[in-house]
Amino acid sequence: MLPAYLSNPFAAVFGGGKPIDGGRTYKDGRRILGDGKTYRGLFSGIFCGFIAGCIEIWLSSRGFEIMGINMPVFGPDYKSALIVVLALASGALFGDMFKSFFKRRMGLKRGASLPLVDQLDFVVGAWVFTYLVAPEWFVSNFTHGIMLTVIIITPLLHLTTNIIGYLIGVKKEPW
Amino acid sequence: MLPAYLSNPFAAVFGGGKPIDGGRTYKDGRRILGDGKTYRGLFSGIFCGFIAGCIEIWLSSRGFEIMGINMPVFGPDYKSALIVVLALASGALFGDMFKSFFKRRMGLKRGASLPLVDQLDFVVGAWVFTYLVAPEWFVSNFTHGIMLTVIIITPLLHLTTNIIGYLIGVKKEPW
Repeated sequence: MLPAYLSNPFAAVFGGGKPIDGGRTYKDGRRILGDGKTYRGLFSGIFCGFIAGCIEIWLSSRGFEIMGINMPVFGPDYKSALIVVLALASGALFGDMFKSFFKRRMGLKRGASLPLVDQLDFVVGAWVFTYLVAPEWFVSNFTHGIMLTVIIITPLLHLTTNIIGYLIGVKKEPW
Repeated sequence: MLPAYLSNPFAAVFGGGKPIDGGRTYKDGRRILGDGKTYRGLFSGIFCGFIAGCIEIWLSSRGFEIMGINMPVFGPDYKSALIVVLALASGALFGDMFKSFFKRRMGLKRGASLPLVDQLDFVVGAWVFTYLVAPEWFVSNFTHGIMLTVIIITPLLHLTTNIIGYLIGVKKEPW
């Protein structure tokens, strides 16, 4: 999941520039996606997530492990593994973009928060993309138990980060 | 899950009257829960959900089935089954109330929608209560696959209902 977890923050860091919707509005008169979704963010996010996945594949090939846990392999061979990594990284950002589209339709401004939706958009996007390119690998690796764990842990992880940010004073609200 | 699914709409239908927070505000100056959470709604919702569960238990005891699917039994004996039904019905409403507390803290008004959170609050509440009163029954009945299905199907069911409502003109927005 690391390529999916990393593509979003990297897209935010390297983002900016021309918005993907080119400033155009939807038939409801609101922006299609808004200024928060840019080409630079999209491509740099996918690139960084992809690189993270490549590092994982490389470490895995050298038998590297952290606290007894092996690096994930993402597939039976290098080609399949790279496709899965690309699907995880790009799916995460497209999931986020898909959500932005609906946020604009609901009349929410850029950055308006939707708890749970904001923390799971990229997970669902990454899973859908990965399932489409590698259904067998997906089904055998993302068991129901693992999926349930990711769905529960991801928002909690996000909340924990924000509470820490609140306690050390860098965030105004604890969520 | 029927007691959990029914307690909420019945609470809305029979609700009104004295709010549970008695009009009091939290330290942020906003209402603790708001006028949307009343004693009458809470008790009538739990009562109706409980009755629905009792009907299921009764139908199950007579071997009743719908399209080849047996009614759920909720436990090894009547006493355990009634406790589970009560936990499902009341957990659903407490989950909803818990969410209302956080909605007020976020400054959201009564009825302001939080997609996904609004559709899963009662599911999580019902599961937590049921797990607390009958952990063994819970674990053997709510497998990871079933939990994942409920988490995915519940918001989709809600969305479908709303889209139908939009198409036949009783709802202004399709969500």
